[in-house]
Amino acid sequence: MSHVWRGFQRLTRVDAARDSFFRSVKLEPTEPEEVALSEALWRVLAEDVSAPADVPPRARAALDGYAVRSTDTLGASPESPIVLRVVGEVRAGHPPDFGLSAGEAARIFTGAYLPEGADAVVPVEDAEELGESVEIYTQVPAWKNVARPGEDVKRGELVLKAGTPLGPYEIGLLAELNIPRVPVRRRPRVALACTGDEIVEVGGDVPLGKVPNSLRFIVEAMIRQAGGEPTYLGMVEDEPDELIRAVESARDADLILTTGGTSVGKADMVYRAVLEAGGEMVVHGVAAMPGRPALLAKLPDGRPWIGLPGYPVAAVVDFRLFAAPAIWRLLGLRWRPLAPGVRARLVAPIPSSPGVRHFARVRLTLSEAGDLLAEPVRVSGSGILSSLVRADGFVEVPEDVEGYPEGSVVWVELLTPYERWREWI
Amino acid sequence: MSHVWRGFQRLTRVDAARDSFFRSVKLEPTEPEEVALSEALWRVLAEDVSAPADVPPRARAALDGYAVRSTDTLGASPESPIVLRVVGEVRAGHPPDFGLSAGEAARIFTGAYLPEGADAVVPVEDAEELGESVEIYTQVPAWKNVARPGEDVKRGELVLKAGTPLGPYEIGLLAELNIPRVPVRRRPRVALACTGDEIVEVGGDVPLGKVPNSLRFIVEAMIRQAGGEPTYLGMVEDEPDELIRAVESARDADLILTTGGTSVGKADMVYRAVLEAGGEMVVHGVAAMPGRPALLAKLPDGRPWIGLPGYPVAAVVDFRLFAAPAIWRLLGLRWRPLAPGVRARLVAPIPSSPGVRHFARVRLTLSEAGDLLAEPVRVSGSGILSSLVRADGFVEVPEDVEGYPEGSVVWVELLTPYERWREWI
Repeated sequence: MSHVWRGFQRLTRVDAARDSFFRSVKLEPTEPEEVALSEALWRVLAEDVSAPADVPPRARAALDGYAVRSTDTLGASPESPIVLRVVGEVRAGHPPDFGLSAGEAARIFTGAYLPEGADAVVPVEDAEELGESVEIYTQVPAWKNVARPGEDVKRGELVLKAGTPLGPYEIGLLAELNIPRVPVRRRPRVALACTGDEIVEVGGDVPLGKVPNSLRFIVEAMIRQAGGEPTYLGMVEDEPDELIRAVESARDADLILTTGGTSVGKADMVYRAVLEAGGEMVVHGVAAMPGRPALLAKLPDGRPWIGLPGYPVAAVVDFRLFAAPAIWRLLGLRWRPLAPGVRARLVAPIPSSPGVRHFARVRLTLSEAGDLLAEPVRVSGSGILSSLVRADGFVEVPEDVEGYPEGSVVWVELLTPYERWREWI
Repeated sequence: MSHVWRGFQRLTRVDAARDSFFRSVKLEPTEPEEVALSEALWRVLAEDVSAPADVPPRARAALDGYAVRSTDTLGASPESPIVLRVVGEVRAGHPPDFGLSAGEAARIFTGAYLPEGADAVVPVEDAEELGESVEIYTQVPAWKNVARPGEDVKRGELVLKAGTPLGPYEIGLLAELNIPRVPVRRRPRVALACTGDEIVEVGGDVPLGKVPNSLRFIVEAMIRQAGGEPTYLGMVEDEPDELIRAVESARDADLILTTGGTSVGKADMVYRAVLEAGGEMVVHGVAAMPGRPALLAKLPDGRPWIGLPGYPVAAVVDFRLFAAPAIWRLLGLRWRPLAPGVRARLVAPIPSSPGVRHFARVRLTLSEAGDLLAEPVRVSGSGILSSLVRADGFVEVPEDVEGYPEGSVVWVELLTPYERWREWI
């Protein structure tokens, strides 16, 4: 049996693996669908958006004060105020039905349109109203304290490019432009099949020798988090034919994920399934630790198939390296999501071997002086608690670095984006 | 009219404002509700969770190799191998139906339970199978390459505390413990009323002098992002009675938000509504720039009411300072969400006045050398595009710092968590 146990012939470096995988497979952005603004949070814009009109459409007061003709204020100062006649008042939402002639002013509130003839606003603290007149204590140039038409957005201006993720402010901009619905990329459909003789579904009986299929829930949550829509194909015994049937049932999936059955010791079940399904192996075995037994393949129709290892922490590393960016491609994202992280000082060395990218798990604590300390997690178990939940983040050691000594200040990519090193409530 | 235009009597510093607000109002965590694991992503655990059983329940192989009695390998080396008889094979998911006696070994695959009598695993690369025997080239101590029962989680151990946000790995841990449903905090209900004579709903006609109510969508999205559930109470003309009626209709809201009508120049509409509704003003006017005209109040039944300014960027600053942490309290979160950010070098100074916390908007670019540069955004307009979408983040200048000179390396809190300074696709 030892021949099926041999190691991988060749490990591909992470960047090279991702590059050749992304070059080989079909990762075109999904087709657009229209959603209402209230459903648009963190969806990805599918088309460029241009402004249908100037914002603001007319000149508006930028603060509370007096609308004036700027030329009327020439030479005004506290010592020699200029007196103007107050002919009206303008509030936001109520466009003025009068204009200003020379020597006239109007009370105006922030956001209100300037009366015809006015071209500047004197701030309320630089004026004093006395009966039907107002004393102006400062000289204002044209357009002072005024938002000019089109100042924020000009009609026809490209304001949001296709591929922009819609956060609260982008959604607010679309609302400001009076655009209530917006074309976004369909969420990529990601099919997931879990292999392994030992797994059973969560929530039922767990016979001796079996374990609940926790990886399903980890991967489904990571798919959602990356912007995809998971479809669970179920559990598959360690038989290539059964796996092929499951994968073939997912005709409409944009990306296929499997868990388990990728290591050489598992008799290469997924490897054989890919080839028997007429697919093509792009990468088998990645120079990542953990995460080595990853499998990156292509179905006959070009769709990507990522075989994740059966071990939670290795599956998580490979998901982050390959599956998440594949989903971002399918979304047509212009920018990569920022990995949340912090800088911290290592309280123990992190060893690593050259040529392999290491992901060391660390726990974060606060020193008495208030500095963040990163303590490498001694990996005593292979379960999720010790491998993922007890750790706060990963320290990535690149291929050309031989570990980090104690005391180094390193970047810790957080596993969950919370300040878990201090209780808040 | 100038008396209603006077500035705030007194501005409260940000931390003091938040502290006294949080001390005054009711911000108890919401009641628990049960959800399935597939619905649990980023919900907040409402109760402590302890392990119902040991994980793993029995000793398991941590790698592929040969299960042995460790005492049988004493003195084994490549030069003087010890020969054991192979009596069987164990795969994960198939518990062994045999035990090991002295001088015996069993082929074993990662994750498989050890046969009775075995207490260690010899890695496959340190052994060579020859017919019915295996040559062992290394000595292994007891429990070497074995996950011991309860090694990852002990029965009864507290594994997740109430208040933990459920990310992919916490969900995976619950699945590993065979817990299919979990009690989480109900999403806080956040009612939102928007004031202003000039606003109209998005998507309809926009008469001259009116503007679409974009702030509604910004605030709703920020509520969702913070973990709350928005309820829109509609738009309210600048009349306190109408606002009181709207707020009173939101009997089941955990938090009331209003936009607009908070500045002294707007005749203090929200201020008056709070008092006329029998509420209590906690803070009116915050030493934040932008964000000064914030109003923090308490309804007669103790529920919090936050009056956000009508200007998008000021509303966003005050939402982040007061409304988001209030929602986190209502969720009973143990930890604060990490604000995503980056360090960057200022290419121009950021001025600020002492005693006030400034939030300067900056745009991020990459220098030719690949360094991140932060360029303060010249605020030419008050619209959303120029104030929020064109900027990538905020630089916070604390009250006791008088601005940052050009060349300073500053922390930029990102407005949306994407690497917007470089195109990715």
